[in-house]
Amino acid sequence: MRQAVQSLSIQTRGQGLYEVTESLAAFVASNAVQTGLVTAFVRHTSCSLLIQENADPDVQTDLNGYFARLVPEGMDWLVHTTEGPDDMPAHIRAALTQTSIGIPIMSGRAVLGTWQGLYLFEHRRRPHRREIVLHLSGE
Amino acid sequence: MRQAVQSLSIQTRGQGLYEVTESLAAFVASNAVQTGLVTAFVRHTSCSLLIQENADPDVQTDLNGYFARLVPEGMDWLVHTTEGPDDMPAHIRAALTQTSIGIPIMSGRAVLGTWQGLYLFEHRRRPHRREIVLHLSGE
Amino acid sequence: MRQAVQSLSIQTRGQGLYEVTESLAAFVASNAVQTGLVTAFVRHTSCSLLIQENADPDVQTDLNGYFARLVPEGMDWLVHTTEGPDDMPAHIRAALTQTSIGIPIMSGRAVLGTWQGLYLFEHRRRPHRREIVLHLSGE
Repeated sequence: MRQAVQSLSIQTRGQGLYEVTESLAAFVASNAVQTGLVTAFVRHTSCSLLIQENADPDVQTDLNGYFARLVPEGMDWLVHTTEGPDDMPAHIRAALTQTSIGIPIMSGRAVLGTWQGLYLFEHRRRPHRREIVLHLSGE
Repeated sequence: MRQAVQSLSIQTRGQGLYEVTESLAAFVASNAVQTGLVTAFVRHTSCSLLIQENADPDVQTDLNGYFARLVPEGMDWLVHTTEGPDDMPAHIRAALTQTSIGIPIMSGRAVLGTWQGLYLFEHRRRPHRREIVLHLSGE
Repeated sequence: MRQAVQSLSIQTRGQGLYEVTESLAAFVASNAVQTGLVTAFVRHTSCSLLIQENADPDVQTDLNGYFARLVPEGMDWLVHTTEGPDDMPAHIRAALTQTSIGIPIMSGRAVLGTWQGLYLFEHRRRPHRREIVLHLSGE
């Protein structure tokens, strides 16, 4: 068994889902592993990772709409407000989704389902440079 | 170190939790790994994975009841409605739970706690055939 | 590639976040792995794991405040009530966060971001002894 790591840099332009499925696939393909495990990890606490449908873009619209309602800005009991009104909601939305996702590799590919895409889920309004670390082990 | 993969097929019959702990344990046991890591990954975006109590079935009843209230059908602002009223709520419930779970193996067994079971969490009303991929590495 | 496992015991004193970042770092350092993957897994269903900001303690206050509001005690439709009013909300809060988190290792360290800490998220009111299993593989 062998392993590899790679860092992905993603420039975000506000809240929403940024697909990184192709970068993940390229990382797996470039390492020519037939069977293994690839792990994506995001190094931030105000964005997160999500595997979701990559077919109908309306799904992303509704995911954004739901999280904006579930964790709205302006909750008046929040005490962590110094980094802006979108910062603490961003931390909470990150806590409700994932920081790391492990995906098996079979026949040389991550076993994402037909409709599954891997996304960076940005929860801040302003542009940010985000880093995802990919780790792969297998043979 | 060596590794193995296996695909599990689960036929669901509506919303709720479907326990796969025994299939996971059998996969680990059949590979005779003493120490390692087993990862479960579900290849869909309208069902998910969950580790929860496997003792009192009332816990499952309440989990279903909570998610039905937290992400109800009929939210009138949803735009992804073409696949039925339960489809977009299913995507959201999947986003709020997990798509992959990694469990260490010690002394030849996944280290699930006494009351922990691994479940497929089905969020669609109609029957579906679901696939979970298990990956194991260790020695 | 080689691997290691270790069990951490954490004594909780009520609801809230208990940081285990240093124990994770010590486990990684003691195994002298340069590149790899470390996985944390919690063996309970009424507490969970969370990676969150470790800079401003107000973030933790607000996370506790949010989960107390999102999953309040006293929801009158709950049926699993025999273990106390905080037990079923604890299971639900655990379902909404994580049971396992995988973190890549680069240059001998888990690649946690500058502001990221790993926490046990205790959802029960009374003190509990909790167990986290750490697994590491790499070289």
